Amino acid sequence: MENGDGNEGTSAFHVPEWMIQFADQKQEFNKRPTKIGRRSLSRSISQSSTDSYSSAASYTDSSDDETSPRDKQQKNSKGSSDFCVKNIKQAEFGRREIEIAEQEMPALMALRKRAQGEKPLAGAKIVGCTHITAQTAVLMETLGALGAQCRWAACNIYSTLNEVAAALAESGFPVFAWKGESEDDFWWCIDRCVNVEGWQPNMILDDGGDLTHWIYKKYPNMFKKIKGIVEESVTGVHRLYQLSKAGKLCVPAMNVNDSVTKQKFDNLYCCRESILDGLKRTTDMMFGGKQVVVCGYGEVGKGCCAALKAMGSIVYVTEIDPICALQACMDGFRLVKLNEVIRQVDIVITCTGNKNVVTREHLDRMKNSCIVCNMGHSNTEIDVASLRTPELTWERVRSQVDHVIWPDGKRIVLLAEGRLLNLSCSTVPTFVLSITATTQALALIELYNAPEGRYKQDVYLLPKKMDEYVASLHLPTFDAHLTELTDEQAKYLGLNKNGPFKPNYYRY
Amino acid sequence: MENGDGNEGTSAFHVPEWMIQFADQKQEFNKRPTKIGRRSLSRSISQSSTDSYSSAASYTDSSDDETSPRDKQQKNSKGSSDFCVKNIKQAEFGRREIEIAEQEMPALMALRKRAQGEKPLAGAKIVGCTHITAQTAVLMETLGALGAQCRWAACNIYSTLNEVAAALAESGFPVFAWKGESEDDFWWCIDRCVNVEGWQPNMILDDGGDLTHWIYKKYPNMFKKIKGIVEESVTGVHRLYQLSKAGKLCVPAMNVNDSVTKQKFDNLYCCRESILDGLKRTTDMMFGGKQVVVCGYGEVGKGCCAALKAMGSIVYVTEIDPICALQACMDGFRLVKLNEVIRQVDIVITCTGNKNVVTREHLDRMKNSCIVCNMGHSNTEIDVASLRTPELTWERVRSQVDHVIWPDGKRIVLLAEGRLLNLSCSTVPTFVLSITATTQALALIELYNAPEGRYKQDVYLLPKKMDEYVASLHLPTFDAHLTELTDEQAKYLGLNKNGPFKPNYYRY
Amino acid sequence: MENGDGNEGTSAFHVPEWMIQFADQKQEFNKRPTKIGRRSLSRSISQSSTDSYSSAASYTDSSDDETSPRDKQQKNSKGSSDFCVKNIKQAEFGRREIEIAEQEMPALMALRKRAQGEKPLAGAKIVGCTHITAQTAVLMETLGALGAQCRWAACNIYSTLNEVAAALAESGFPVFAWKGESEDDFWWCIDRCVNVEGWQPNMILDDGGDLTHWIYKKYPNMFKKIKGIVEESVTGVHRLYQLSKAGKLCVPAMNVNDSVTKQKFDNLYCCRESILDGLKRTTDMMFGGKQVVVCGYGEVGKGCCAALKAMGSIVYVTEIDPICALQACMDGFRLVKLNEVIRQVDIVITCTGNKNVVTREHLDRMKNSCIVCNMGHSNTEIDVASLRTPELTWERVRSQVDHVIWPDGKRIVLLAEGRLLNLSCSTVPTFVLSITATTQALALIELYNAPEGRYKQDVYLLPKKMDEYVASLHLPTFDAHLTELTDEQAKYLGLNKNGPFKPNYYRY
Amino acid sequence: MENGDGNEGTSAFHVPEWMIQFADQKQEFNKRPTKIGRRSLSRSISQSSTDSYSSAASYTDSSDDETSPRDKQQKNSKGSSDFCVKNIKQAEFGRREIEIAEQEMPALMALRKRAQGEKPLAGAKIVGCTHITAQTAVLMETLGALGAQCRWAACNIYSTLNEVAAALAESGFPVFAWKGESEDDFWWCIDRCVNVEGWQPNMILDDGGDLTHWIYKKYPNMFKKIKGIVEESVTGVHRLYQLSKAGKLCVPAMNVNDSVTKQKFDNLYCCRESILDGLKRTTDMMFGGKQVVVCGYGEVGKGCCAALKAMGSIVYVTEIDPICALQACMDGFRLVKLNEVIRQVDIVITCTGNKNVVTREHLDRMKNSCIVCNMGHSNTEIDVASLRTPELTWERVRSQVDHVIWPDGKRIVLLAEGRLLNLSCSTVPTFVLSITATTQALALIELYNAPEGRYKQDVYLLPKKMDEYVASLHLPTFDAHLTELTDEQAKYLGLNKNGPFKPNYYRY
Repeated sequence: MENGDGNEGTSAFHVPEWMIQFADQKQEFNKRPTKIGRRSLSRSISQSSTDSYSSAASYTDSSDDETSPRDKQQKNSKGSSDFCVKNIKQAEFGRREIEIAEQEMPALMALRKRAQGEKPLAGAKIVGCTHITAQTAVLMETLGALGAQCRWAACNIYSTLNEVAAALAESGFPVFAWKGESEDDFWWCIDRCVNVEGWQPNMILDDGGDLTHWIYKKYPNMFKKIKGIVEESVTGVHRLYQLSKAGKLCVPAMNVNDSVTKQKFDNLYCCRESILDGLKRTTDMMFGGKQVVVCGYGEVGKGCCAALKAMGSIVYVTEIDPICALQACMDGFRLVKLNEVIRQVDIVITCTGNKNVVTREHLDRMKNSCIVCNMGHSNTEIDVASLRTPELTWERVRSQVDHVIWPDGKRIVLLAEGRLLNLSCSTVPTFVLSITATTQALALIELYNAPEGRYKQDVYLLPKKMDEYVASLHLPTFDAHLTELTDEQAKYLGLNKNGPFKPNYYRY
Repeated sequence: MENGDGNEGTSAFHVPEWMIQFADQKQEFNKRPTKIGRRSLSRSISQSSTDSYSSAASYTDSSDDETSPRDKQQKNSKGSSDFCVKNIKQAEFGRREIEIAEQEMPALMALRKRAQGEKPLAGAKIVGCTHITAQTAVLMETLGALGAQCRWAACNIYSTLNEVAAALAESGFPVFAWKGESEDDFWWCIDRCVNVEGWQPNMILDDGGDLTHWIYKKYPNMFKKIKGIVEESVTGVHRLYQLSKAGKLCVPAMNVNDSVTKQKFDNLYCCRESILDGLKRTTDMMFGGKQVVVCGYGEVGKGCCAALKAMGSIVYVTEIDPICALQACMDGFRLVKLNEVIRQVDIVITCTGNKNVVTREHLDRMKNSCIVCNMGHSNTEIDVASLRTPELTWERVRSQVDHVIWPDGKRIVLLAEGRLLNLSCSTVPTFVLSITATTQALALIELYNAPEGRYKQDVYLLPKKMDEYVASLHLPTFDAHLTELTDEQAKYLGLNKNGPFKPNYYRY
Repeated sequence: MENGDGNEGTSAFHVPEWMIQFADQKQEFNKRPTKIGRRSLSRSISQSSTDSYSSAASYTDSSDDETSPRDKQQKNSKGSSDFCVKNIKQAEFGRREIEIAEQEMPALMALRKRAQGEKPLAGAKIVGCTHITAQTAVLMETLGALGAQCRWAACNIYSTLNEVAAALAESGFPVFAWKGESEDDFWWCIDRCVNVEGWQPNMILDDGGDLTHWIYKKYPNMFKKIKGIVEESVTGVHRLYQLSKAGKLCVPAMNVNDSVTKQKFDNLYCCRESILDGLKRTTDMMFGGKQVVVCGYGEVGKGCCAALKAMGSIVYVTEIDPICALQACMDGFRLVKLNEVIRQVDIVITCTGNKNVVTREHLDRMKNSCIVCNMGHSNTEIDVASLRTPELTWERVRSQVDHVIWPDGKRIVLLAEGRLLNLSCSTVPTFVLSITATTQALALIELYNAPEGRYKQDVYLLPKKMDEYVASLHLPTFDAHLTELTDEQAKYLGLNKNGPFKPNYYRY
Repeated sequence: MENGDGNEGTSAFHVPEWMIQFADQKQEFNKRPTKIGRRSLSRSISQSSTDSYSSAASYTDSSDDETSPRDKQQKNSKGSSDFCVKNIKQAEFGRREIEIAEQEMPALMALRKRAQGEKPLAGAKIVGCTHITAQTAVLMETLGALGAQCRWAACNIYSTLNEVAAALAESGFPVFAWKGESEDDFWWCIDRCVNVEGWQPNMILDDGGDLTHWIYKKYPNMFKKIKGIVEESVTGVHRLYQLSKAGKLCVPAMNVNDSVTKQKFDNLYCCRESILDGLKRTTDMMFGGKQVVVCGYGEVGKGCCAALKAMGSIVYVTEIDPICALQACMDGFRLVKLNEVIRQVDIVITCTGNKNVVTREHLDRMKNSCIVCNMGHSNTEIDVASLRTPELTWERVRSQVDHVIWPDGKRIVLLAEGRLLNLSCSTVPTFVLSITATTQALALIELYNAPEGRYKQDVYLLPKKMDEYVASLHLPTFDAHLTELTDEQAKYLGLNKNGPFKPNYYRY
C-alpha cells in the first residue's frame, strides 16, 4: 500500500525520478551490495507497497540475540532447513497471529474452501516477494491449499514479522526474511528464493518490482517457464509499464494496484481512518476546532478531509486540478493556496504525490506547534531536507515525532520525518489487506489458468468481473445481502446476471 | 438532466427499449402526428434531459388566452416575426429572469468576455433543441456574442418558460416554443428551425436526439454542411452510439453527457440536495428518525443516502453490483434486499436505472403512509401500472402527490406518479445548469474550430482538458484559489502545467 | 413555535419591548379597535407561537367571496350556528386534512384510546386560542374525546385554515376564526369564545397570551372558576412570569414552552430541516460550496449549522456567549465577528433572539446576490427598516423574496422581509406539532385533575415525568424499543423504574 | 475525568455502592493499611477522576531501581528534602514535559499573566490531591504564581508521572507521589501533605475526596482555618453532597465537576475522539461497515455514536430514558433492546453509568470476534465477573486486550477488562485537561476571595459567569473572535454585556 502516485489529487503513474534511480542502479545488480547507505535503504522502503508496520510490528521481546540469521543453523520440526528466519522457535507465537488473521480474512478462507476440490494452482511454482506479515501468511497458505508450491522473500528490510516467518518456516514454507535485513541480506534472500537446485518458478508475485528485477538481471532464462507476473505496488507497476513500452516485457503481467476495490479501500476508506489514528498515536491532539490544511483532494485527500471534518476540525484544501478543486468546494471545504492559510493552521497534511509541496518557506511561516505530516507519496512532499540546517534544532520527543525548533523558540511538530504517516504511525486494518491478498490470489489463478495466448506480453488490469468477485467475497463480513437481477431486468439493462455490471470507464 | 442510465447504481448506456420505440416510430416521421396519446407524450418527456421545471416553471399569471401561438400574428419591436412564442409582450418579464440567471452563470459570462474579441463562432449557424429556460437563454446569447447565428426549438412540450421565449424573440432570436405544445406542435417547431429559406445550419445542439432525428429523416442532405452534433442527454447519446455502430453517423458528435463535471454535479451533488427538496415540497415530512431504503448506490443513490443520513434518517441500501455494495457498507449503510425491510421503512427511493425495482408485491407489503418515489430513470423503476387496479383507490392530495388506498385503508404516498422526483417536484439549481451550458458552448466551439479530419464520424467524449477548463471557470463562484504547479513539480509529475492533470481512467 | 428568545444562542426570556407595547395597548382593550395599522398587525403575528403557515396554508381556491364571515348566516348540518368560519361548505375538504393529520399524530390518538374510559377531562370547559390547523383540530377532538367542552379562536389573523375551521364547526365545535381577520375581528372572535350565555370556561389553552389578556381585562371574575392556564409561546410565558412577579397571577399556569421535548424538537431538529427547506423553496439555490454565516449558536443556530455543513456549505458562526462559542469551535465552525466575513459570504442567517444583529452597515458591505434571512426571533434581528431608504430599490421577485438593489446595481436577496424564514417559507412538520399538542393535552389534564393546592398561583414547568411520557408516546413512530431497568439496576441507580430518569438540571 | 454517573444516558449522582464502601472503610482510617487487596486498589482507582493515563504515562525507562521512595534520601538542588518522589534526577526531563504542556494550556498561562499583579491567592495555603501529570504541574505552578503555597499528593496510585513529580520537587513544590504506590504509601503521602509542623492548609483541592476524607477523620480541627474545598470528581462531589445532607459539611465546597464546559468537553467532545482512538490502538480494526451497539445515549453515548457514524459504522442505540431515546432517533440511530441486535453486532460499547448492562447471557450470544468495551462508569457496566468461569479460556493478546474463548471456539474481544476504555487505552488531550485545571484555579480564587458569609457550608456549582470566563480563556486557541453586545442590544436582552448570558437551566 502506497497512498500516492496513482490516486492522489494531482497525478497518477508518473514517477520519473525512479527512472533515474533505475539507471543509476543498473550496475548494482552485478555485484552484491555490501554497504547500506541511507539513500539505498529509503529506496527499498519507498518502492514496496508499504513502508513498515511499525506499531504492530513486533509482538515479542526484541532482546533477541544479534547473530545474523544467515550465520545460524536452524531446522524446523520436520527436519527441513530450507529457510532462513530470525528464530524458528518463535513459530508457535506466529501461528497464533496467523490464526487471528484468518478470522478476519474470510474471503481467502472462502477461496480455500471453494477452490480446494479442483486445486486450480496444482503445478504452480510461485516465487513471492512481499511484506511478510500474518496476513501474507494467510495468503501463502491459501496458495498452498490451492495446490501451489511457494518460496518467499521480504520486499522490505524492516517489515518482516519474525514470528510469522518462523511459523511459515515451521509449516514447511521456504521463507527467507527477517526484520532488519541489510541491503545485502535483502538481495541474498531474494536470490535464495529463485536460485534453487531442481526447482524453477513459473509464477511471480511481486510488490515493488525488486524480485522481477533480480530475475531479469540474473536469470533472464527463467522467463521461458514463467506464465506471468502479479504486481501490487505503484512503483512495480510503473516499472512493468516501462518494460512493456520498451518492448522488454517477456511475460504477461497483472496490475492489481489499479483494481477498483483496492484503490477505493486502500486510499479513500483506509486513509479516512488512518489519518485520525496516526495523528492521535503520535500527538494525542484533540481534533475538535483545529484548523487543518490538506494538500491534494484525490482519494487520499478526500478520506483525510472527511474524517477531520467529522471530528470537528476546520479543513482547507489546496489543489492543482480544477475538477478535484470543484469537488472540494461542493464537499464543503474552502479551496485556498497554501500561502493563504499557512500562518493560521494547526496541522498541514500532504496528499499530492507531488514533491516539495511544503517548502522551507512555508515551514518558516507556520505558527508555533503546527503539526506537519505526509499521507501522500514516498517522502518527497515535505521538503524535510530543507530543515536540516544549523540554525534549527531537532528534538526527538517520541518515536516518529520530532520537534524542529527555530531560533526564536517556535517549534513545528514533524511526524515520521515526512514519510507516510499512515504506514509509520498507524496500522493497516486486516480487512484492507484481505482485499489486496484476495485480489492477488485471483490474479495468480487467472494468469496460471488462462489459455495460451489469452494474455500477451503486456500489462493487464484485473478483469472487472474479478474485481466484482473480490468485492462479493467480502460482503459477508458486513452481513450484506446483494440483490440479484431478474431475467427480465437483466434483459432490460442488457447485462449478464452475474456481471460485469459496469462499463470500464465507470467512476464509482 | 436525467439521473438514470449513465450513472445510477446498476448500469449504464443500455436502453434497449428505446430501440424498439425507435423502430415503431419510423413511420410517424412521415406524417405530422395529430393526436397526442399518453404514451407519445411521456416518451417525448422522458427522452429529453429534463422532465420539467414545474416549481419554477410559471412566473406569470397563467390566465393567458387559449389561442394557439401557431395561429397568432406576432412581431417583436424590431418588426421581425421569425419566431413563434406564447406572447411576445411578456418579453420584459423574461428579460429580468435572464438577467438574474446571468448573475449565477459566471462561467458563460466569462466566456463571453474572453472569447469576444476573436468570435470563435463567427459563421456558425447553430440549430438548437433544448429546454427553454432563463439559463438556456444565457447560453444562446453567449453563443450569439461569440459570433453564432441560432435558431431554437424546445426539447420538451412542457418545460418552456413563455416569458423567456418571448424575451429571446424580442432580442431577435428565432425561437419556436411554448409551454404546453401538442406533439404536432413539437415537430412543427423543430421543423420551423431547420426548414428555412436561405439558411442552413452547420452545427446541431440537441437534448434528447429529436432534432437530430428529424434532420436525419427529413433533410439528410443537410448533414453535408454540418460540422458536428453536441448532445447532452443519455438517450440522445445512446441514439448516437447506435447510429455510429450501425455506420450511419455522418458527422462527428460530442457526448457532453459523460463529462466528469456534468456527471458528478448533475448526479451526486445535485441529487444530494434535490432529494430533500423534492420530499419536503411534496410531503412536508420530517426526515429525522425516518427509515428509508434507497435502491441503487450509484452517484444518484450516493447523493440521496448522504443527504438523508445527514438529516437523521436511518438508511438502507439495495444493490446488484458488489463493488457499489461494498462502498455502501463502508459508507455506513446496511445492505439489504428490498424484501427484508419493505415492511418497516417509511420511504422507498429508487435510483437504479432499472425497471420494476419496486413491484406490486412490494407495494402490497409496505406499511401505512409509506412514501414511494423515483430518483433514477424515466418512470420504469416503480411498477406504477400495477397500482391501476380496481380494488385500489387513487386520491390526488396535492400536485404530484397521490394517495393509493388499499381496501383495508392502508395508504401509500406515491410522488410524481413514479416519474423523476427531482425534476417534477424540485428545481434544478442554476449552478448545475451553468456547468452543463458551459460544457455545451465549449463543445460547440471545439467541433466548429477543429481542423478538418481531427474528428471522424464518431461519438467523442469532451477532451479532459476542456472538462477541466469548465471546472476552472466555475471556481470563482466559490472564491476558490487553484494552486499552480511549479516548473520543477510539473517536470517531476510529467505533467503540462495547464493540464490535463489526470489519466482518462481516473475515477475522481 | 417561535425560534427565538428562549433558546437562541444569546439569551432567553427577555422581551422587554413587549412590556412597552403592553403598556401602550392598555387602553385599546376598552374599545374595539377598528383600524388595522401595520404595526398592530405585526404585533399580533409576532407574539403567537407561529408567524404563519403560508406555504401549506391554503388548500382550496382562494377565489372565495369577499363577504366577512361576521356578516354571514351559516349553519352546520346539525343546525347549529354557534361558530363563525369562512365557509361551512368546505368542511368535507377540511375533514380529509384532519384525517391525514391523525395518521401522523399517533401520540394523541393513543391518548384518546388510553384515557377514553375514564374521561379525565369530563367537566372541563376549555377555551382555546391557537393557530387553527389540521393538527390543532386533532388536539381539539382529542380533548373532546377525553370529556372536555371546547370553544376556540385563532391566535393569529393569517394562520387559520378555513377548511379545517369549517370541519370543526361542522363537527359541533364552536370555532371563531378565518384566514385574514382584521384586528377588530381578532378580538371579536376571542370575545365570542368567552362571552357566552350559560357557559363559563374553567381551563385556558393559550398561545401568545392574547386570550388570557382579554379575560384579565374584560372578565376578571372568570378566574374564580378557572383551574389553570396552559401557555405555549415564549411571549405568552413571559407575560405570565411578569404577572406572577407582579403578584397578579391568580391561577396556576403551565409553561409548556420550556419542556425538553418541545425545545429540542422545535428548535434543534426542526430548524435543521427547515433552514434547507426555506432557502430552497424561496431561492432554488445550491448549498454545496456556499459560504454562510450563522449568527448565534443556540439550538436554532446549531440546527442550521449542522444542516448546511452536511450539504457542503462552508459555515461561519458569530456568538456573544463564550460557552456556545466554544461549542461552535468544537463542532468545526470558525467563530468570527460578522464584520470579518460579511464581504465574502453568500448567505447570512440570524438565530440570536437579539435585535439589529445585521445592520445597514453590514448590508452595505455584502456582496452581490447575498441572501439574508432570519431564523431567530420576531423580525428584529435584521434591521430591515434601514433598507427602506430612497436610494435603494425593492423588487419583489417571488412570494417572500425581495431583491434590494443598491445604486451601483448590487442586489441583496431578502427573504420574508426579515421575518422568520421557517414559518414564512417552509412548513412545520406534523411530527413536531404532535409533540407540542400532546404536551398541551397532558398539561391540561394535569392542571384539571391536580388536587386542590397542589399548584399555587404560579408558573410551572411541565413535570419531567410528563415530559418523558410525551417522548415515550412518540417512540412507536420510529419503531423504537425502550429498555427497561431491572429491579437491581433501578436500585443501583436510585431510580424509579418508570422515571423520572434525570435530575432537573440535566442538559440532554 | 470519569465518564459515568453525572452525564451518561441513564442517570446521575447515584452511587449508592460508595456509601456501603464508605461505611466499611471507616475503621481503615485509624490504622495504616498494610496490605493491598485487589479490591482496595480498584477502589482508589475508580473514585479519582481518572483511571490512569497508561499510554502516555511513562516517558522514561522503567528499569528504575526498586527501592521505595520512602526509604530514599533525596534533596533538590536548593537543598530541600521536603518532598518524596521516585527520582529527583529525572527533573529535567519532567521540566521539558511541563514546558510542552504550557504551550497547550494558554488559559492558565493567561491567568498567570492577568492575575500576577494582584496575587489573588497571596496567603493561600493549598493542599492538593490530584493526578500528577505535566498538566497538573502547570496548574500548580500557576497557583504558585498567583501567590499560593501548595503541598501535593497523588489521587491515584498509578497515575503519577515520576519525571513531572521530580521537576515539581526540584522547583520547590513539596510533592509526595510516585507511580506504583501501595495503598499504605497512598495515605502516607496524603498525610505528609497535611501533617506539617508550622503549616496548615486553608484551601483544599481534591479529586476523588480521599484528601478531604483524611482530614475529616484525622484532623477535623483543621477545617476551622479552611476556607473551602474544590472537588472535581463525580465520586468526591457525591461524598460532599452526602456530608452536606447529613449536616456534616463544615466549609463551603465548590463542585467543579458539573460546570458546563467540563461536562461537554470531558464527555461529548472528548469521547467523540477517544472512542475511535481507544478501539484503534487496541484492535487496529476498521470502523467502516461495522455494526455497533452503543448502550446509553447521554453525552458520552452521543459522542461515541457521532464518531462511529462518521467513520461509516452502522450504529444501534439502547436507552432507558424516552427523551434521550427520542434524541437518538432524531440523530439517525435505530433504538433497540440489546437482545435484538446482540447476535449481529461487531462491537458493543457501554456508556450508561449503570451496572450489568452487558450480562453473561448477552456475552454468550455474541458472534465470534465481537469486541466489548466500556466507556461509561467504573467497571460495573459489563458483567466481567461472569466470564471468570472454568469453561471459558482467557487469552491476553495485547496489553488491555483479552480474548475470552468459548468451548466451541468462539472468541470475544474484551478491552481493558471492562474498565474505562478511554482512560485505559487512549490519552486525554491536554486541551480538555486545560479546561478542568482552569476551572479549578478559578474556583480556588473565588472561594478564597469571597467575602465572609458569601458561601455557606454547602456545595456550590461554579457561578455561570466563571464558567463563561473559562470558556472565553480557551477561545484564543481556536483564533475564535467573540462578538460583543452593543449597549442597545444588552438593554434589549436585559443582559449585562459581560455575561452571564444564559439562565441557569439553559441546556446548551
